Amino acid sequence: MIKASIIGASGYVGIELIRLLLKHPEVEISSIISSSNKDIPIEKTNPQFKKILNLTFKEFDIDLIKEADVVFCALPHGVSQEYVKMAYDLGKVVIDLSSDFRYKDLSRYSKDYGEHKYPQLLNESSYGLCEIYREEIKSSKIVGNPGCYPTSAILGLAPLLKNKLIQKDSIIIDSKSGVSGAGKKSDFSYSFCEVDENFKAYGVAKHRHTSEIEEKCSFLFGEDLNLSFTPHLLPVKRGILSTIYATLTKSLNKNELIEIYKEFYRDEFFIRIYEDGLPELKYVTGTNFVDIGLKVDKKANRVIVISCIDNLIKGAAGQAIQNMNIKFSLNEKTGLVTVGEYF
Amino acid sequence: MIKASIIGASGYVGIELIRLLLKHPEVEISSIISSSNKDIPIEKTNPQFKKILNLTFKEFDIDLIKEADVVFCALPHGVSQEYVKMAYDLGKVVIDLSSDFRYKDLSRYSKDYGEHKYPQLLNESSYGLCEIYREEIKSSKIVGNPGCYPTSAILGLAPLLKNKLIQKDSIIIDSKSGVSGAGKKSDFSYSFCEVDENFKAYGVAKHRHTSEIEEKCSFLFGEDLNLSFTPHLLPVKRGILSTIYATLTKSLNKNELIEIYKEFYRDEFFIRIYEDGLPELKYVTGTNFVDIGLKVDKKANRVIVISCIDNLIKGAAGQAIQNMNIKFSLNEKTGLVTVGEYF
Amino acid sequence: MIKASIIGASGYVGIELIRLLLKHPEVEISSIISSSNKDIPIEKTNPQFKKILNLTFKEFDIDLIKEADVVFCALPHGVSQEYVKMAYDLGKVVIDLSSDFRYKDLSRYSKDYGEHKYPQLLNESSYGLCEIYREEIKSSKIVGNPGCYPTSAILGLAPLLKNKLIQKDSIIIDSKSGVSGAGKKSDFSYSFCEVDENFKAYGVAKHRHTSEIEEKCSFLFGEDLNLSFTPHLLPVKRGILSTIYATLTKSLNKNELIEIYKEFYRDEFFIRIYEDGLPELKYVTGTNFVDIGLKVDKKANRVIVISCIDNLIKGAAGQAIQNMNIKFSLNEKTGLVTVGEYF
Amino acid sequence: MIKASIIGASGYVGIELIRLLLKHPEVEISSIISSSNKDIPIEKTNPQFKKILNLTFKEFDIDLIKEADVVFCALPHGVSQEYVKMAYDLGKVVIDLSSDFRYKDLSRYSKDYGEHKYPQLLNESSYGLCEIYREEIKSSKIVGNPGCYPTSAILGLAPLLKNKLIQKDSIIIDSKSGVSGAGKKSDFSYSFCEVDENFKAYGVAKHRHTSEIEEKCSFLFGEDLNLSFTPHLLPVKRGILSTIYATLTKSLNKNELIEIYKEFYRDEFFIRIYEDGLPELKYVTGTNFVDIGLKVDKKANRVIVISCIDNLIKGAAGQAIQNMNIKFSLNEKTGLVTVGEYF
Repeated sequence: MIKASIIGASGYVGIELIRLLLKHPEVEISSIISSSNKDIPIEKTNPQFKKILNLTFKEFDIDLIKEADVVFCALPHGVSQEYVKMAYDLGKVVIDLSSDFRYKDLSRYSKDYGEHKYPQLLNESSYGLCEIYREEIKSSKIVGNPGCYPTSAILGLAPLLKNKLIQKDSIIIDSKSGVSGAGKKSDFSYSFCEVDENFKAYGVAKHRHTSEIEEKCSFLFGEDLNLSFTPHLLPVKRGILSTIYATLTKSLNKNELIEIYKEFYRDEFFIRIYEDGLPELKYVTGTNFVDIGLKVDKKANRVIVISCIDNLIKGAAGQAIQNMNIKFSLNEKTGLVTVGEYF
Repeated sequence: MIKASIIGASGYVGIELIRLLLKHPEVEISSIISSSNKDIPIEKTNPQFKKILNLTFKEFDIDLIKEADVVFCALPHGVSQEYVKMAYDLGKVVIDLSSDFRYKDLSRYSKDYGEHKYPQLLNESSYGLCEIYREEIKSSKIVGNPGCYPTSAILGLAPLLKNKLIQKDSIIIDSKSGVSGAGKKSDFSYSFCEVDENFKAYGVAKHRHTSEIEEKCSFLFGEDLNLSFTPHLLPVKRGILSTIYATLTKSLNKNELIEIYKEFYRDEFFIRIYEDGLPELKYVTGTNFVDIGLKVDKKANRVIVISCIDNLIKGAAGQAIQNMNIKFSLNEKTGLVTVGEYF
Repeated sequence: MIKASIIGASGYVGIELIRLLLKHPEVEISSIISSSNKDIPIEKTNPQFKKILNLTFKEFDIDLIKEADVVFCALPHGVSQEYVKMAYDLGKVVIDLSSDFRYKDLSRYSKDYGEHKYPQLLNESSYGLCEIYREEIKSSKIVGNPGCYPTSAILGLAPLLKNKLIQKDSIIIDSKSGVSGAGKKSDFSYSFCEVDENFKAYGVAKHRHTSEIEEKCSFLFGEDLNLSFTPHLLPVKRGILSTIYATLTKSLNKNELIEIYKEFYRDEFFIRIYEDGLPELKYVTGTNFVDIGLKVDKKANRVIVISCIDNLIKGAAGQAIQNMNIKFSLNEKTGLVTVGEYF
Repeated sequence: MIKASIIGASGYVGIELIRLLLKHPEVEISSIISSSNKDIPIEKTNPQFKKILNLTFKEFDIDLIKEADVVFCALPHGVSQEYVKMAYDLGKVVIDLSSDFRYKDLSRYSKDYGEHKYPQLLNESSYGLCEIYREEIKSSKIVGNPGCYPTSAILGLAPLLKNKLIQKDSIIIDSKSGVSGAGKKSDFSYSFCEVDENFKAYGVAKHRHTSEIEEKCSFLFGEDLNLSFTPHLLPVKRGILSTIYATLTKSLNKNELIEIYKEFYRDEFFIRIYEDGLPELKYVTGTNFVDIGLKVDKKANRVIVISCIDNLIKGAAGQAIQNMNIKFSLNEKTGLVTVGEYF
């Protein structure tokens, strides 16, 4: 059994990691670390674990890392670096869910997140977007688990970028996310009365996930590109739906594009291409799937991609486990095959 | 007092017309017509009117139209034409909330909605987008009240189009609407368990509001243009937020654009331009306002417009009353000044 | 025009007072007081007021009270007492929305809320449940505006209590409230992800509204009684529905009870008794109405009363204005007749 | 592997059975039967099954039953009887999710549901409330799977009834259910705009689950009793919370009652008694657990029980599988241990 330690275990992503790891046949959770909840049994803070998991949150202690085979770091960016460094120095498999190890270009990181204490570690780390960076993940010491918006956007665009089917600066990503994407917070702006029956854009033309998406899309495209990314806040708990627009470089109809996508993702279990209809949030929430649908607006020769994920699973904890499966040479699906309970 | 008759009074738009007209100091509702509810007091079907409105739904009868000064037609397209014709022949002010009298170009109408029985009446009708077509509304016999998506999109784009500030075929309108936009229906796809906690695009690259938006935007721009329009279904009751993208023809920053919008809508009470921050659904629902915010994505020289309305008010019943106010030379605000009750 | 000052104007109740007073033809808002928002225009914190209300929040200043005819105090209990005292000393009509002036029995107050600094003022104050205490309200200096749960419960029970139709200790009040009842807070337990798709009881057998309900029900019944009150949190913004159970002292059927209720509330505009069907939240939210329906469980000789209000209107700001109307000898309906916008 | 056939497989309960059975290590789904969807692959009607389940809905055919070991009947009452009879005649284990085989007293059934075609089969059937009727379930040919409301109510009351701790006719069950309890329907009253932001009671003093609850509570109590049951409709998809009131026959405090409950359910994995705090819907949705909390209103010597379940799992599909586990002598937990994904 693989022993897993989770640092930052009491946040929404941490709890989701615990929930998912409990279904994983090859993993045993060795410690759940949360200084703010130290010495409290998880069933007290999260009664959904009653009778299922008899563990107590612990304060951070290097020994807890030493006894683990894999360390999941679910901490805020900046804070995360120290813990990743410690686990790295101990030779552990480290999967970091902050933005600290997602970038190759330090200047992109610094512009949005400030100074990085261990920039040299960026060379030791891979970008954990499993379907695209599988080989690099296998060989790297640290996995920088992708952001939720980037996961939905990049996987929705990859076949177009790799095949150079779209005009370089024509990409617009209009994303809509559920509230859990903001994390476990008491902010007034995420209170029920402010979010329910509401909808809004936020961080327009300046959200920090933009640089992450741009870096990875540029790699896939083979040259640097700029794109517009607009996140919106949906009055739902889970899920991201990205509506992606781009101008085609040649005339292609919907069916041709679907074939290109199916071919590109031929061996990828977690990517589902819709031949008829379009994906909806409810079909992916609760799962590690990425559901992708396509339309072509012929008059404008524009492709419209709809890409859906569960922000807490494929957008965070699920993909982290998929990365762990890769690192431990397990079948990537292990512990991650579920049907969403949409009603 | 202006006597108002409402045909199709029991649907969501009809009921909203009644609710709003009750607040109008110059109007008396002379009849509420609904064959499916004939002879039933409105307080039985809609208990929110108990102790407020003592009226009974009636079957259609030409005499009910004769005694009215203004006729609101809240019927499905196609069905609406006959009733509008009758009221028109009687010389009444007719405000039609279907799509039957919104088009100038019969071929655009026919392509999306089929044959029109009274195409000559399109010449007698104006497009009831008050802020843009006020003078034509005053002088026309029939007002074709705009669709909800077109209202949010066209008003969001008008200053850019009129001033030729954007590239012709660069417009993308990504709209998100509450469920009441679908009308009072028992469709499974609008049932609570299917909509709640869900989000989806629908009618991508083929929704019928596209041609209405294109016709009016082409007029404003001065040449025919094509645009991409993607509607989505939000798990809220009311409200439309449109995120609109277009490439600028020259370099303009956010503040310059805000000045252009403020100047364009200088005398328009119902348009609110946000100098700071961005509009959200909750600030407009329950009102006749159009809230507009702007951002510029400098790298792409792309403007991003956020335009919010209440689909049942500015997108239907409220704008219909605003049109009535214009036709009867009342202050346009009469009966329509409210603050939304967002929490 | 009556000049109104609102202390604690930036909370949910304060904002609702402003929204409703704007519709009142006899009132002018002279000041909105909120130390936490001092010098900020209301349209910055609450954009729904853009173009409607050009006022700025002010820090408390005794001069603001001096120039007012009526003072609405929308502060937390305890804090409220000082401000009520000041306004009282200036001879103003004071309507207090906290629990500080609702009790006759100081010991009940103290048990739940702690020490009262001005207990003698309890003798100068009336309980502002308009339909029951109208005459006392007219003659008192201070009006203690009722709690939201008590309003729904007491008005639902009054005809049974006054007519001694129920067994003294058989009353059970099972209430369900929307989230705005908790006020404008950033508490984690009211965050969207915690409330949405959830439902829970809270404060079971110990909620502080119990003593308020018991005191007033005892007065109506003519002897001291105890009752069970269980509040629950609904995933909606507004509204309280109370399901009230009591054992009848004699055999009465539904129709007989409805007649008793109709007779009891014969002249009360804001009470709507349902002869058919039962009230639902959506018919009262947005209004000052109390909707009441009845059923009899014959086998158990138990009456079941369903009583619905909007917690922010009849349960707070609306009833406060109704009390103001009483104090200023206006028609009680003035400014308060609206139809809810349920869809 | 146990071969399972599901009749009525396309409804909400049928789909939930499929979803849960896919996680069961000892079961293979041999057929999914739905005449209205015959010959349609499940991934077309329910895209959440894409890449997970490659099955096609079939029209009913007796051969499909013959090849199965267990038959789940998820059909409306009345319709169900014929299919249960067929499966029974073939000697199959039959688990019926309608109300057709829940009653011992035919007259109770007939009063609420009309004539029963095979009343003699009631003697061959057990009431599938696993924690109470385990032995009878083992030895019966047909299992009548309990209703959702009865499951939450009876399990919440059983320790009090069995120990004769409450007054016979003092029981009041105030239940609140999510919308999926109504099944997969296109009814206007379950449409999003009618349910969202609303709350209502329905079927007061006449809901058909009352007789089911009364029959089983009478058995547990040892004499016939009457109780009041009021269902309400919550604007959530899943979950039932029942607030149950009863007068104690002797003075007991909360801790004593909790001990009695813990003792009564000592060996029951799926019952979780809360020593601190109270259960909430979000902790049980997605699981087969019954979460129970208790309070005592001392003044009234009244116990208040809060009992929560997921109406589609412990209230339907999950309990059906638990019954299957009993019938096939598997560990009852098999395939049913999950943590809910509340955020």
